[in-house]
Amino acid sequence: MSLFEKHKETIDKAVEAIHDRSFFAAYPEHPSPKIYGEDADKDGREKFQASLDKKFEDLLQENPEAWVGEEQSPYLNKALGILYPSFSADTLIERSQKAWSQWRNLSVDERAAVLVESLDGFKERFFENAYATMHTTGQGYMMAFQASGPHAADRALESLAMGYEEQKRFPEHQSWTKPMGKYEIKLNKSWRAVPKGISLVVGCSTFPTWNSVPGLYSSLVTGNTCIVKPHPGAILPMAIVVAEIQKVLKANGIDPNVCQLAPDTYSKMITKDLAEHKAVKLIDYTGGSKFGSYLEGLADKTVFTEKTGVNSIILDSAENIDKVAQNLAFSVCLYSGQMCTCPQNFFIPEEGINTPNGKVSFEDFAQKLADNINGLVDNPKAGPFVLGAIQNPNTTGHIEEAKKLGGKIWLESRSIDNPMFKEARTATPIIVEMSTKDKDKFTQELFGPIVLLIKTKNTEESVNMAAELAENHGAISCGAYTTDATTKNMIMDKMALSATPVSFNLTGGIYVNQNAGFSDFHVTGGNPSGNASLTNPEYVIKRFTWVGFREPVEG
Amino acid sequence: MSLFEKHKETIDKAVEAIHDRSFFAAYPEHPSPKIYGEDADKDGREKFQASLDKKFEDLLQENPEAWVGEEQSPYLNKALGILYPSFSADTLIERSQKAWSQWRNLSVDERAAVLVESLDGFKERFFENAYATMHTTGQGYMMAFQASGPHAADRALESLAMGYEEQKRFPEHQSWTKPMGKYEIKLNKSWRAVPKGISLVVGCSTFPTWNSVPGLYSSLVTGNTCIVKPHPGAILPMAIVVAEIQKVLKANGIDPNVCQLAPDTYSKMITKDLAEHKAVKLIDYTGGSKFGSYLEGLADKTVFTEKTGVNSIILDSAENIDKVAQNLAFSVCLYSGQMCTCPQNFFIPEEGINTPNGKVSFEDFAQKLADNINGLVDNPKAGPFVLGAIQNPNTTGHIEEAKKLGGKIWLESRSIDNPMFKEARTATPIIVEMSTKDKDKFTQELFGPIVLLIKTKNTEESVNMAAELAENHGAISCGAYTTDATTKNMIMDKMALSATPVSFNLTGGIYVNQNAGFSDFHVTGGNPSGNASLTNPEYVIKRFTWVGFREPVEG
Repeated sequence: MSLFEKHKETIDKAVEAIHDRSFFAAYPEHPSPKIYGEDADKDGREKFQASLDKKFEDLLQENPEAWVGEEQSPYLNKALGILYPSFSADTLIERSQKAWSQWRNLSVDERAAVLVESLDGFKERFFENAYATMHTTGQGYMMAFQASGPHAADRALESLAMGYEEQKRFPEHQSWTKPMGKYEIKLNKSWRAVPKGISLVVGCSTFPTWNSVPGLYSSLVTGNTCIVKPHPGAILPMAIVVAEIQKVLKANGIDPNVCQLAPDTYSKMITKDLAEHKAVKLIDYTGGSKFGSYLEGLADKTVFTEKTGVNSIILDSAENIDKVAQNLAFSVCLYSGQMCTCPQNFFIPEEGINTPNGKVSFEDFAQKLADNINGLVDNPKAGPFVLGAIQNPNTTGHIEEAKKLGGKIWLESRSIDNPMFKEARTATPIIVEMSTKDKDKFTQELFGPIVLLIKTKNTEESVNMAAELAENHGAISCGAYTTDATTKNMIMDKMALSATPVSFNLTGGIYVNQNAGFSDFHVTGGNPSGNASLTNPEYVIKRFTWVGFREPVEG
Repeated sequence: MSLFEKHKETIDKAVEAIHDRSFFAAYPEHPSPKIYGEDADKDGREKFQASLDKKFEDLLQENPEAWVGEEQSPYLNKALGILYPSFSADTLIERSQKAWSQWRNLSVDERAAVLVESLDGFKERFFENAYATMHTTGQGYMMAFQASGPHAADRALESLAMGYEEQKRFPEHQSWTKPMGKYEIKLNKSWRAVPKGISLVVGCSTFPTWNSVPGLYSSLVTGNTCIVKPHPGAILPMAIVVAEIQKVLKANGIDPNVCQLAPDTYSKMITKDLAEHKAVKLIDYTGGSKFGSYLEGLADKTVFTEKTGVNSIILDSAENIDKVAQNLAFSVCLYSGQMCTCPQNFFIPEEGINTPNGKVSFEDFAQKLADNINGLVDNPKAGPFVLGAIQNPNTTGHIEEAKKLGGKIWLESRSIDNPMFKEARTATPIIVEMSTKDKDKFTQELFGPIVLLIKTKNTEESVNMAAELAENHGAISCGAYTTDATTKNMIMDKMALSATPVSFNLTGGIYVNQNAGFSDFHVTGGNPSGNASLTNPEYVIKRFTWVGFREPVEG
């Protein structure tokens, strides 16, 4: 059985799931011993611990020019001490170019099979990767396992399936016969999906795998070679992924440099050297807007970005306002507001929120939200694990800035104890009341656990502000609560024009922050929060070029 | 029967043809009385003649701010005298914005049906449009009929079918049920293909409809409103198309300003005013590279360009060199080299071209090509009609420049008589011999009937130069002649990487300039000759944004 035959069913099912868009997952999200094995968690933790304070030797990139690594654990408040093989931009590019010819000349089937095989290898390291993710990003264990493991693997599979399908949409060969009255013109035609060249994938520090593997797998399946430039603060999770890809490449007689890791340090970043190199044709980027916009502006590159946005919650009316407050409290606590989908600006009419029991005033809702947050963060069995730790020490600075915004502070941010990690850097959400007059203060992302409650004239103003913010400053998610059909339609129309997805009336165990592979497009690409969408067809189509050939049929 | 039901079969067949890519045409290319009616040609000619020297009153754009028109016939060497209603950029934008809400809220089916209906209306005016095209572009009658009529209508249908399919690739609604062990999370989800806004289509003077309708129909079917800015030298062909669209819009109760014509004059062009307006989100452009690159550089716009390129012929070996020379002579004479697909640089090895009868020397081939061109242009039943007329008087300047390139002139350019139009502006091809040392002289398009024969060391150098020129300066077509399989593969690989389609060994009645709807992608989008390809999926996908909505299932 060929590698393609081994994985054909997985690829076919993934393609089907993309079009069906009902629930689908190829990699189970539950870190259960029944699924992953009795010792899987223990083995993964030990493997992570064994990797500390030494060289990471799993990569197949020969003759390192240096060994670098500056990762810090937000839980342990100390360096991980792992060193990765490092190379100059020129060496990386040269190796990538050398590896390209073989990779691009494989069939789409062969490339897709190699990539699915690598995800199977990654699956064997989900637990190790969970600890790697916790101790670089500060995510709680469950999120670190799910988002960085199975959810990321599903997004990778989705991307490669989309790329697989797009390359199969037109025939490889076709005969073309044009009737010309008394005779015919007959041509043999063929078409090739030609990859663009070297693809650079630039990772972020909060979701190192989830945000990097879609670009990586999309570029690889379409025949490009890749250089993965992780954030210096979160290298290990992607090092594991790249190592698994290289292992499968080598096992199949393919140059492992088809996919290289390019770790760097804070003091000597190599992203610009790589991005500006003529041979780099594709760039995937997740991170701050300033650098993202610089990359988007580079000439002759195809650039896919996820930058920052300002996410809104629109509160109009609700069946059960307590469940709403509970749901939103969880949303803002989850990973301490360090998710790109976390809501920041809550728009509430000055006359309050309609409920079956009458209006709930702005003040009452603010108090309910504060109470629910306190209830969650002070629950020792939940709070520390939902909040996780703060990845970047600068994030506490944003909380300080939020304090100075001038509005009433409904809830102060504070540290809580993590029972497992005494040194963990933690921060609970701050809630600040704002007026619509303060618009210039809430038009940008205040990264971290920061909630702004903005008093509006009415829901129409709420929606207009949310839409305007999304259109001018970007938004990745939006939550809306309304029991009125007309209002719902108005919200859908206005947010659609601002290219922002909307979750309506979420209560219970599903949150606006969450985003499902094979069903939810992540980022629309239509507002300033990013120009790419995971994973719509545009996301893969731009990675290759259709080129046609034709020749008269002989005789 | 609804309008959609009326046209469903046409749309379905077009979608099927896009994927099949064998021969397909919805609009017959032969201007035969049997197909189009006994009096169709006469009626069309009379209608064209009746439109001269007066106002064009077919458009449904009210209250013109002025009447403008500066078209000149290259056949009659005088002004057509037709005046079109003109409007300021602000008026056009305001009307476009007003019309958008209704248009974008129609279903994809409804929009597609309106557009197919408009093509049926256009079909009734193919002959009138042929004369309009002749007397603005200088094309010969047959090309003017085919390229500007049925071929353009097929490209429009292809584009709208591609846009139709892309908007149907994901479900409008889906239920999503996630198993959570003891319970389930159930969401109702929906997705919308949200149009971007106002689309600006900027036409050229040589193929006013063929190069404009793909962008126009792609933008319209995806729910955008359009402003068509024709070249001031070739307004009438697109005025007819826009009038037919407006007629169908009005008949179906839709604001005709969904599609507006924006004629201007050489002294007061409004393209920049429109292109730079914040509300204009999409731009389609055909024309010179300088203005095209300016448009590509505009921030926050999605821009589709076809600019200029340098097309190569690679001569390595041939079964019958006389048939090759005959075929290429026709290619360079067709519309006097004013096609974007016309070859310019002929690369010939210094040792000659291999044939079954031995080498044909560089000099012998040059003479054969010159003889074939003379044979064609001096044939009074063929020459004047194949050459057509020179659209822009400046083109003769390019011929003067070619004379000064310094190489041996194998054939001088000259005027020939057109038996039907005494005042016709004509020019036959010039053939100039060049050396590879003159590379800086042939890296740009020399627009018009200009052939450069470039002597190379060998075929490998020919291919490398053709590929390098394509990669750095753009190429839209490439013709290659080789009977050697290894050489053919080498050419395919190198030209594929330069994103240039290749026609191999064309002889007889098919030419490198030609390009078939539903089968050949026109321009790849992968080299500097343009960033868009007619019509690959990217060409329509970028005109809208996928936005998702979700809400828990009640109860």
